[in-house]
Amino acid sequence: MNYKTLRYCVEDDGILLLTLNRPDKLNAFTVEMCEELVHAYGRASTDDRVRAIVVTGEGRAFCAGMDLSVGSNVFGLDETQRPTMSDMCERLDVPEIQSGVRDTGGRVALAMYDCLKPIVGAINGVAVGIGSTMLLPMDFRLASETARFGFVFGRLGITAEACSTWFLPRIVGHEQALEWLYKAEIFDAQEALAKGLVRSLHAPTALLEDARAFARSLVKGRSAISLGLMRQMIYRNAAAPQPIEAHRVESLSMFYTSIGDGREGVRAFLEKRAPDFTGRASAMPPFYPWDAG
Amino acid sequence: MNYKTLRYCVEDDGILLLTLNRPDKLNAFTVEMCEELVHAYGRASTDDRVRAIVVTGEGRAFCAGMDLSVGSNVFGLDETQRPTMSDMCERLDVPEIQSGVRDTGGRVALAMYDCLKPIVGAINGVAVGIGSTMLLPMDFRLASETARFGFVFGRLGITAEACSTWFLPRIVGHEQALEWLYKAEIFDAQEALAKGLVRSLHAPTALLEDARAFARSLVKGRSAISLGLMRQMIYRNAAAPQPIEAHRVESLSMFYTSIGDGREGVRAFLEKRAPDFTGRASAMPPFYPWDAG
Amino acid sequence: MNYKTLRYCVEDDGILLLTLNRPDKLNAFTVEMCEELVHAYGRASTDDRVRAIVVTGEGRAFCAGMDLSVGSNVFGLDETQRPTMSDMCERLDVPEIQSGVRDTGGRVALAMYDCLKPIVGAINGVAVGIGSTMLLPMDFRLASETARFGFVFGRLGITAEACSTWFLPRIVGHEQALEWLYKAEIFDAQEALAKGLVRSLHAPTALLEDARAFARSLVKGRSAISLGLMRQMIYRNAAAPQPIEAHRVESLSMFYTSIGDGREGVRAFLEKRAPDFTGRASAMPPFYPWDAG
Repeated sequence: MNYKTLRYCVEDDGILLLTLNRPDKLNAFTVEMCEELVHAYGRASTDDRVRAIVVTGEGRAFCAGMDLSVGSNVFGLDETQRPTMSDMCERLDVPEIQSGVRDTGGRVALAMYDCLKPIVGAINGVAVGIGSTMLLPMDFRLASETARFGFVFGRLGITAEACSTWFLPRIVGHEQALEWLYKAEIFDAQEALAKGLVRSLHAPTALLEDARAFARSLVKGRSAISLGLMRQMIYRNAAAPQPIEAHRVESLSMFYTSIGDGREGVRAFLEKRAPDFTGRASAMPPFYPWDAG
Repeated sequence: MNYKTLRYCVEDDGILLLTLNRPDKLNAFTVEMCEELVHAYGRASTDDRVRAIVVTGEGRAFCAGMDLSVGSNVFGLDETQRPTMSDMCERLDVPEIQSGVRDTGGRVALAMYDCLKPIVGAINGVAVGIGSTMLLPMDFRLASETARFGFVFGRLGITAEACSTWFLPRIVGHEQALEWLYKAEIFDAQEALAKGLVRSLHAPTALLEDARAFARSLVKGRSAISLGLMRQMIYRNAAAPQPIEAHRVESLSMFYTSIGDGREGVRAFLEKRAPDFTGRASAMPPFYPWDAG
Repeated sequence: MNYKTLRYCVEDDGILLLTLNRPDKLNAFTVEMCEELVHAYGRASTDDRVRAIVVTGEGRAFCAGMDLSVGSNVFGLDETQRPTMSDMCERLDVPEIQSGVRDTGGRVALAMYDCLKPIVGAINGVAVGIGSTMLLPMDFRLASETARFGFVFGRLGITAEACSTWFLPRIVGHEQALEWLYKAEIFDAQEALAKGLVRSLHAPTALLEDARAFARSLVKGRSAISLGLMRQMIYRNAAAPQPIEAHRVESLSMFYTSIGDGREGVRAFLEKRAPDFTGRASAMPPFYPWDAG
């Protein structure tokens, strides 16, 4: 697939560099970019060359938000419809809901949530609106000291999207989430660090290489199956009402890894040598994906 | 409605000053105060003059806890009943359960949870027992340097209430929540700040004006519909087991705001002028309130 | 019951000192230790001599992880089976699933989750693998300055267990949980403190006495019924999708304590004397255990 708004580049060390690539528009988000991001995160899951993903923006911005210069409904919505909650529960994937009603940012966030590889953000500049909310399903947000953020939806009379009302309070707490959403102001990288939105700040010239090195440190010598299962279990089980839901999945996960990469891992540990894992994320154990029930 | 235990005063700038008003009893909580608070938070949601709520106490205390000087069962419970979980699931709103069994603090907490306006606490003095737990469903807790707090239920042989076992660990984590509940001691404003229970401390004479100014900063020039929907989405979606639940509601919320206040908001943004939002919280979009399913 | 891998010692002040007792193996975890821990936590719930639990390790380690020197499948799993999610939902307690498939660490974690007494860890040394994950369902983790931790599963090609994918992100957040799981490295007590995994660090010689004193401070003069109910409500209600679930249980809890230990507690408070609570955790109110529905 040739992307028009992205670059998908797998480097020799297994790092996929995924670059938002509309620099003349400050990488503003479009419906086309939504479709390409959904495709790219799904592709990365089963692309066995990819061990971890680093996401950044081309040029001086990360993503300046929704491109408000297009179309009649700038969000790409079909204004002739009057959707209901029952449509959203029962007809989410029919074409008129899929393309005329569903939030495009949310479709990207769900693709990131389902991804089997660690996702590291390298936030190189302004990240506003969907530019801020699309950061939240990343596992780690590394930012340039010059990055700026803003959950500005309230100023436009619209509301937070991209599943941010699920992710943001889990990252920074209800109080800070509400303060940013209500105030709807631009804030700088130092505030983002202090409040826990980003993991660390980096000199602009060092950011991308720091993010690559960090991503490599997460995956080198590790089993791709083990990492993919743990990513899925953390996001899904942390939100389960009871720990027994985690126990069900963890039991299956331990079982199938213990007769897969885990057998080699234990043997290598006992023999005091590096393991040689052969599992591939394109061939996950039979219980994956599990139904959370 | 004339309240006997509260003052409900809407100021010119859209701030509702809601004052616990039993200063000779240190604003101790009663069944009557429960009924009036439930009414006042519901009324504030659809009172379009109200943009945000500041809650404080008259006199030197915020709320000294349940008034233990009244009645046979000091909590207003009907001791002749023997309620079961099935009563609480199936008969929650029948009169004998409603008035003889249900926790009064919990009824207030649920009314705050359902509120459509930002809630800012101005904790002016001692806040103990229900005085502490009724703070938790507020979006922000600003406190006097002289305020004191205490989840003292364990010392009385009773248990935490007012939905605090849902709210408190979400604010300060399981470990701190359990430490305060087990120890059941009074603690000061500095500890409350250090552990994240309150957002900021203020000189006693400055507290109320600081809280008003903070509340104004959250709502000035913002859409009442957008703020109300985002408040509801943060509390409800953050606790959902899966982000797709957030996606369903956010899609509807983006859809209906994009053809409402959002149309004016985007136009004003493109024309580089302040928006003129006309949406009112008394006329929410048709999907509200949604069934979390 | 005579434990082979544990010591269960109830001290005069109501503190159960529960000691992992395989010091020659650095207290490495075995299937036998799993069974004994499940038994001991259940026993402590209804042993009315026990007011709080302090858990530590004999010798220089807390627990060095799974004992990898045993059996054909080192995790005690029956490799002839091919379990499915439907087995885990419908047949969790049948013998071949119970002993051949279920994660042993998870069975211990669920027993701790169900426990009615405060659990305080005194982490005296290395705590790796299941040694780290079995700490997470403790209410408080106090650690020696020389303790070390490690969620090392990824290096062995296996995955996190013991319900850690439910507990760990609730304690330290998704981002830190994923970083420790992906990196799978040993880290020291200072990092554990800085990231919120442990509550406090202690000199090695002071740790156990500090943990005992802390445990006593949680329970002295408090109602055993009140503490047990609050522990259960915090863990269960904090993860409920809606606060009304907390309201149902809290209402029953307030009702039954108000006609039990709470009656004595309120009377003692009004008479300005210490309460004399008679409730026992071995005789919980009739709504316990509740079905979360």
